[in-house]
Amino acid sequence: MLPVDLPDTVRDALLAPLVDHHCHGVRRDDLTRAQFELLITEGGSPAPPGTTHFDTPLGVALRRWCAPLLDLDPHAPPAVYLARRAELGAGEVNRRLLTGAGVVAFLVDGDGSDDGTDDIDLLSAAEMGRHGGAAADELVRIERIERDVAETAQAALDYLDSLGEELAARAARAVGLKTVIAGLSGLDLEPGRPSRGSVLAAANRRLAEPKEPATEPVLLRHLLWSAIDVARERGLPVQFHTGFAGSALDLHRSDPARMSAFVRALQPLGVPVILLHCYPFHRQAAYLAAVYPHVYVDVGLALPHAAAAAARVMEELLELAPFHKQLFSSGCRGVAETAYLGAHYYRQALGAALGGRLGAGEWSAADAARIAHMIGSGNARRVYRL
Amino acid sequence: MLPVDLPDTVRDALLAPLVDHHCHGVRRDDLTRAQFELLITEGGSPAPPGTTHFDTPLGVALRRWCAPLLDLDPHAPPAVYLARRAELGAGEVNRRLLTGAGVVAFLVDGDGSDDGTDDIDLLSAAEMGRHGGAAADELVRIERIERDVAETAQAALDYLDSLGEELAARAARAVGLKTVIAGLSGLDLEPGRPSRGSVLAAANRRLAEPKEPATEPVLLRHLLWSAIDVARERGLPVQFHTGFAGSALDLHRSDPARMSAFVRALQPLGVPVILLHCYPFHRQAAYLAAVYPHVYVDVGLALPHAAAAAARVMEELLELAPFHKQLFSSGCRGVAETAYLGAHYYRQALGAALGGRLGAGEWSAADAARIAHMIGSGNARRVYRL
Amino acid sequence: MLPVDLPDTVRDALLAPLVDHHCHGVRRDDLTRAQFELLITEGGSPAPPGTTHFDTPLGVALRRWCAPLLDLDPHAPPAVYLARRAELGAGEVNRRLLTGAGVVAFLVDGDGSDDGTDDIDLLSAAEMGRHGGAAADELVRIERIERDVAETAQAALDYLDSLGEELAARAARAVGLKTVIAGLSGLDLEPGRPSRGSVLAAANRRLAEPKEPATEPVLLRHLLWSAIDVARERGLPVQFHTGFAGSALDLHRSDPARMSAFVRALQPLGVPVILLHCYPFHRQAAYLAAVYPHVYVDVGLALPHAAAAAARVMEELLELAPFHKQLFSSGCRGVAETAYLGAHYYRQALGAALGGRLGAGEWSAADAARIAHMIGSGNARRVYRL
Repeated sequence: MLPVDLPDTVRDALLAPLVDHHCHGVRRDDLTRAQFELLITEGGSPAPPGTTHFDTPLGVALRRWCAPLLDLDPHAPPAVYLARRAELGAGEVNRRLLTGAGVVAFLVDGDGSDDGTDDIDLLSAAEMGRHGGAAADELVRIERIERDVAETAQAALDYLDSLGEELAARAARAVGLKTVIAGLSGLDLEPGRPSRGSVLAAANRRLAEPKEPATEPVLLRHLLWSAIDVARERGLPVQFHTGFAGSALDLHRSDPARMSAFVRALQPLGVPVILLHCYPFHRQAAYLAAVYPHVYVDVGLALPHAAAAAARVMEELLELAPFHKQLFSSGCRGVAETAYLGAHYYRQALGAALGGRLGAGEWSAADAARIAHMIGSGNARRVYRL
Repeated sequence: MLPVDLPDTVRDALLAPLVDHHCHGVRRDDLTRAQFELLITEGGSPAPPGTTHFDTPLGVALRRWCAPLLDLDPHAPPAVYLARRAELGAGEVNRRLLTGAGVVAFLVDGDGSDDGTDDIDLLSAAEMGRHGGAAADELVRIERIERDVAETAQAALDYLDSLGEELAARAARAVGLKTVIAGLSGLDLEPGRPSRGSVLAAANRRLAEPKEPATEPVLLRHLLWSAIDVARERGLPVQFHTGFAGSALDLHRSDPARMSAFVRALQPLGVPVILLHCYPFHRQAAYLAAVYPHVYVDVGLALPHAAAAAARVMEELLELAPFHKQLFSSGCRGVAETAYLGAHYYRQALGAALGGRLGAGEWSAADAARIAHMIGSGNARRVYRL
Repeated sequence: MLPVDLPDTVRDALLAPLVDHHCHGVRRDDLTRAQFELLITEGGSPAPPGTTHFDTPLGVALRRWCAPLLDLDPHAPPAVYLARRAELGAGEVNRRLLTGAGVVAFLVDGDGSDDGTDDIDLLSAAEMGRHGGAAADELVRIERIERDVAETAQAALDYLDSLGEELAARAARAVGLKTVIAGLSGLDLEPGRPSRGSVLAAANRRLAEPKEPATEPVLLRHLLWSAIDVARERGLPVQFHTGFAGSALDLHRSDPARMSAFVRALQPLGVPVILLHCYPFHRQAAYLAAVYPHVYVDVGLALPHAAAAAARVMEELLELAPFHKQLFSSGCRGVAETAYLGAHYYRQALGAALGGRLGAGEWSAADAARIAHMIGSGNARRVYRL
């Protein structure tokens, strides 16, 4: 999996335990083939008749790399893989794959999807840690808090007050906040705070349909600024989902470059902005991380989805992103295969990048090992104060 | 051309006859150097004084790979290549190159350009098949039908009725429809149908200048929805030109990600949406193919144009596109060299991708061969019901 | 640094002196670590506490490739590198690095930054040439001229007249003009000239704050058209900064594809449009160079910044850009390391691309050598009439 001729120090740095700074829980129950297929696609729809979501880079990769952890030969057919999965049971499968990922700490977004529409029964953060032999901490999904508050609030003022209180209360137990505003109203964020009047009006409209997810830009921006206030007070970073994931999204509107003015507005506040996934805009994200001191970046979900092609995505991130600004995440959700493959392809892709640089005489082994430690866990420990 | 160490089954799958699901006719007559140069550029302008369109990736590639089919040494100089081409005559050249492409069926857009401005004398679909030793079917260019109808219609109501009738009549003899709306008004398509009133008003304006190509967004959207109705009724896919090609276009407005809302509106109708070319937005296109069950994708014209660099473009498509959603096309137009090089670089690029995956132990040979068959012809047979 | 098995003619072509058609001056004085770090980032901010701008691709690269020119071992630590730099003195360091770049002519933008905010003491064009053992010519930064004129003009009419006169006077001593409008109001340029009335009104507003950089789109477009008139009269090209660089910019608004309509408006005038840097939109820029006869392209600053990853950026440019349309620039600014690394990585990246094509039998050695000469200096000599 790693290049054969890596120096030991670099190999050790790559194999060292990772901080998975952004993942979701996985399902605790046994899954039918239809259920499993829906969890290995970002699309939310079954594959067309006569086709299967196993015929994707991720689908082929899990047959290759996860099958051996279930005592199967590599490339096991989908039916064989799923039969063995059922035979072992979800608990055992989750333990094997989460432990196999080689993670020392999971930072877990309790929601199961990045567009906020999913609501399935998932392992909690604490359970993710227990199954994976790792520490675990929580991330606060701010749109989920908003939904909870909207469902119980009686009036706009009450709703707005509760929003701030609830964000503060949940942040007190968390290591970071997370927003999926990219998939709700896009990342063309006006840099300023919305006016009190416009927020009140939006809050009133919001309470008319409290069961629906909030989609109004004014309200979402208010929520985001409330979260930023809390983050600032508590010294927490804010994660932004950017780039691909989900089918409700207009992909081009999730380009993190569109956040530039907003990012500049945050710069004086000192709140770290963490750009998640970013694909296919990871070069844009790397540029933001290079020019703004408070911006961090990963290519989380892109690596297990690109699978055999993950190395190029990592290489493109490495074109411009400062090494003290890159993080590792699996973007795991739904099934533990994504946690395992996220870690696997991260190590493989970074290993290929480092091996190439060492072979060409571009980097020293000492730098390569040091940088692998930074990206794999050191930067996350610093930013999240773990 | 293919990696030397491919298993026989994978090699056979790559060399198996292809369905070229999107091409144009080629010129039947002998060409001057100036005419030939204009047909190997997307730009429509001669190269600046002292330069030549042979000094492009495509220009170097045809000297390398097409010259031997005309009994010349590889890398023959342009003048030698064109002299030999003239000596053999267009008919013989077309036969050699089209046959050499190894295609079992050509799906042919009868128009010679993707911005609808060209009107040169080209081989018909049936002739493309005859010259290439292949079957041939027709694609209906909807903007061409609109132009034909506009030139004869007397009044707006008559025009609108004729549009629907003509689309239906031509679709009855075709395997798919095709639109170049990307190059006319861009892909920021409002998801709904335009109102009857706005369409009538636009039709009246349209009939004032019936010789010009239609450019009004309302009218083009009406045309598109009329085509979709026909496609739905007859079970036909609709091809969308996206990404590069032509100089009349604002490239960023042809990003298929901008179609996301429109694509979602089509999802319940079950009409396959096929994204053509897509470069440099092929990653965005692959994402759409991954999350929407009715979306398909190719990198047609990008491969012969990128030529020696085609493998990376194919690799980037393979990062996210499901294997049951990818198609092969040459995007051939004007000269048969593009049909030959389209097939050549497709096989070379996919061969390199599969060879890399097999060498790294990522894929099994059985999967590689199966997937090569799907992309090269199987998916097209299914979607176009060939 | 170059592939070992290149034919001698190709190696010679790659090592031949380059025309660096776009660079800035470098500082003449000795630098503190803090000053040096600010000059190796595009961001303008110090690295966050506990981190360093040496932990970037460029930072690692200069320790690897510039250290030996200062008599140090490759991979020297930052402190050692900077101590030796101070020991030698800025003059000697500049001479070693600028000479080491192997450049025959520098075309120098006298301003030190691409967003027009910097104003540090830099080597003049003539001094750059003297230190580098090369010829040197000037580029006219049009926004700088505008600022100079605004500071002295008394009234709008006077200001507008002076603008045209000053542009003409300075262009008389220059080989090209340069604009940074991308970073000021973005590249969504309306194709036409602004009306006289709107320009006069904007000029009046402008003179109210003559010390600030101009940001009003109407005024910037007027400035640009005035520059184009001068360029047309004198047969000079106009350079456009596009893509990354600087932190004041909204990256997506610097995509050169957004200039398409403006580029088409310039086509009849015959003024060459030169797209600088372009990353991460270099594929879009290559497409513009392919379809518009007056458009040229480089990936200047992207190569030394991507450093060990520069080869892929060059490869992506080579996917579509005609070989008679590509240029070399280092985009050097502030420190001579960027001039040296710009030339170094240009040669390395193009060498890798040519080596790959020769190894695959795609290109002949004669074509490879010829094309290396064109990109390295021939195209610049033609376009700038050197």
